[in-house]
Amino acid sequence: MSGATKHLHLDGPFPLYRGGLLPEVTLAYETWGELSPERDNVVLLFTGMSPSAHAASSLEDPSRGWWEFMIGPGRALDTSRFFVICFNNLGGCFGSTGPASCNPETERPYRLDFPELSVEDIARSQREALRKLGIERVHTAVGASLGGMSALAYAVLFPGEISELVVISAAMRATPFAIAIRSLQRDCIKTDPAWQGGFYPEGQQPEEGMRLARKLGLMSYRSPEEWLERFGRERVEWMDEPGQEPFDVEFQVESYLEANARKFVKIYDADSYLYLSRAMDLFDLGEHADDGDPASALAGIRAHRALVLGVRTDYLFPLWQQEEIARALKAADLATHFMPLDSVQGHDAFLVDKARFIPVMGEFFAQPGV
Amino acid sequence: MSGATKHLHLDGPFPLYRGGLLPEVTLAYETWGELSPERDNVVLLFTGMSPSAHAASSLEDPSRGWWEFMIGPGRALDTSRFFVICFNNLGGCFGSTGPASCNPETERPYRLDFPELSVEDIARSQREALRKLGIERVHTAVGASLGGMSALAYAVLFPGEISELVVISAAMRATPFAIAIRSLQRDCIKTDPAWQGGFYPEGQQPEEGMRLARKLGLMSYRSPEEWLERFGRERVEWMDEPGQEPFDVEFQVESYLEANARKFVKIYDADSYLYLSRAMDLFDLGEHADDGDPASALAGIRAHRALVLGVRTDYLFPLWQQEEIARALKAADLATHFMPLDSVQGHDAFLVDKARFIPVMGEFFAQPGV
Repeated sequence: MSGATKHLHLDGPFPLYRGGLLPEVTLAYETWGELSPERDNVVLLFTGMSPSAHAASSLEDPSRGWWEFMIGPGRALDTSRFFVICFNNLGGCFGSTGPASCNPETERPYRLDFPELSVEDIARSQREALRKLGIERVHTAVGASLGGMSALAYAVLFPGEISELVVISAAMRATPFAIAIRSLQRDCIKTDPAWQGGFYPEGQQPEEGMRLARKLGLMSYRSPEEWLERFGRERVEWMDEPGQEPFDVEFQVESYLEANARKFVKIYDADSYLYLSRAMDLFDLGEHADDGDPASALAGIRAHRALVLGVRTDYLFPLWQQEEIARALKAADLATHFMPLDSVQGHDAFLVDKARFIPVMGEFFAQPGV
Repeated sequence: MSGATKHLHLDGPFPLYRGGLLPEVTLAYETWGELSPERDNVVLLFTGMSPSAHAASSLEDPSRGWWEFMIGPGRALDTSRFFVICFNNLGGCFGSTGPASCNPETERPYRLDFPELSVEDIARSQREALRKLGIERVHTAVGASLGGMSALAYAVLFPGEISELVVISAAMRATPFAIAIRSLQRDCIKTDPAWQGGFYPEGQQPEEGMRLARKLGLMSYRSPEEWLERFGRERVEWMDEPGQEPFDVEFQVESYLEANARKFVKIYDADSYLYLSRAMDLFDLGEHADDGDPASALAGIRAHRALVLGVRTDYLFPLWQQEEIARALKAADLATHFMPLDSVQGHDAFLVDKARFIPVMGEFFAQPGV
């Protein structure tokens, strides 16, 4: 956990969107900038599936955050103007209540006794947390990937409480291909005997299954084009050294996947992965409309302005899904700017392609708020 | 094995491209049509990674083959004109020598004592087999995916022995993205404790690892667009029935993957998968050129005519790789027809998209041979 992390306990039991109940909910969060006396400068930043609330460095924690280049004085999320707040998702494992948290009823980790989680629960838990902080309105909700789904859910569940929306590489509902990828990731974890039906002992999580799942995740977050430029057919240097296992890492792209996946399994809880991954599959804004059409659900939101960004090489949350979101927001009378970006970096471009994301984000936030 | 399968034993030990040696090689094959007295009407059909030699039905085996709609009297591979022959790949597990075959030195299955396999070995073993059948020239070599790689390798290794080439959704060398997918498939298999370092007992192969690997394969063989049309967000019917496991199959796309993968693990040998998959990663026609450029390797072939087909939605062997092949064949003075197909069915389109593949294949083969 970051030294800048604060914790907030919601009042009373927390009923979940699909029927479960959590006896208590804690959310971990970080903030940057100052809340204005009018409390009208809040930027609520939703995270993707795996990051913590540490989106940027601060005095309390100078380590680099996951969106460091976007947050700070003079940056797109300008902390000399905005009070930026980022929560670790409900269901996550970086300080917020999740499957690895202690179940007060059993005094052991929830594991699979954690109730079914939805994107709607992520949105509502953060809204309750903002209320506890005395914040009733969000100036701008920002999110990419699961974060973008969460921002859309927030806007639909709490119409009139958000003025502006920034939705990046998100979806109004998951495609079967994205579901298939996440389903296989979950299958990798569940197939690991160490998963033990979800009730693995503390410190003994299914690392092999997580390692495989993470590799598949990485493959879905980047693009074939980027890897061609970045890795080509380069070999690793140690490939001819003794001690190699059969069918071992030989190409640099294999080495990159292996190294990244090995890091990830040490910091991320397997059951959190399952719950958040499933929440993304189940997400369907159409559930909030009588006609089942996600666009109808968005028709009821009363925000003023939106920025929708997508990436040509993103095949997990493809560009046509971003166009669909933009079209629905326009139809809901938001002044909507849709910008398809020609980045080679796929779904994760928002985390790495500074050159393309900073200008368009900066321009949006530089315009006068409404 | 199909009732139509014949077996052919090569003479003497078989040295492999990357240095190993097989004491004996048997290849399983099937044929359709009659060899002409001049032995000049041979269509050599290379398979992809997993199919057997049973490409089409016949009197001896009326069961449907993997390219049934393409082979037969009056079909594109017209068996009233051509003698079509298809081998099970060296390294495979449908009657040809592979890791599951008996190692004559130990009288047990080779498993990982099988030497490193290359696409070049697949090509050369089939050339030796044709020689044993008294066939010195191939009228047309045809192949998709690994089969296309094999056809290209054949043309480079045995210049002047092929008149025409049909290359579908193939590559002159693998991209890092394709390598990453196959690497993760191998990792799934190797991570399964039942793999036992490759030396699993007969009938006890690593089915769970194979199941995961096959799912990833299926995801790479089709396209997100197709699954959107085919599955949407439809649920399976039994999702609310009792007996469901946590995070179980709920969407139809998940059910499709699971059912297909479960079938596959019963018929395909895990170590064959590893060897053939690795052979595809390692394949690089550039190894056959002084300057390392695959196009230079193709410059030496002396075929007359080529058809190169690719599919817009194939992200495993993308269209630009087919263009690259077509460009190199044109530069090698082959009359080359390159046809990008707007199929939604991804890499596997050649197996299913009859409407697009039959006409273009039929037209190519209907033209007078040279």
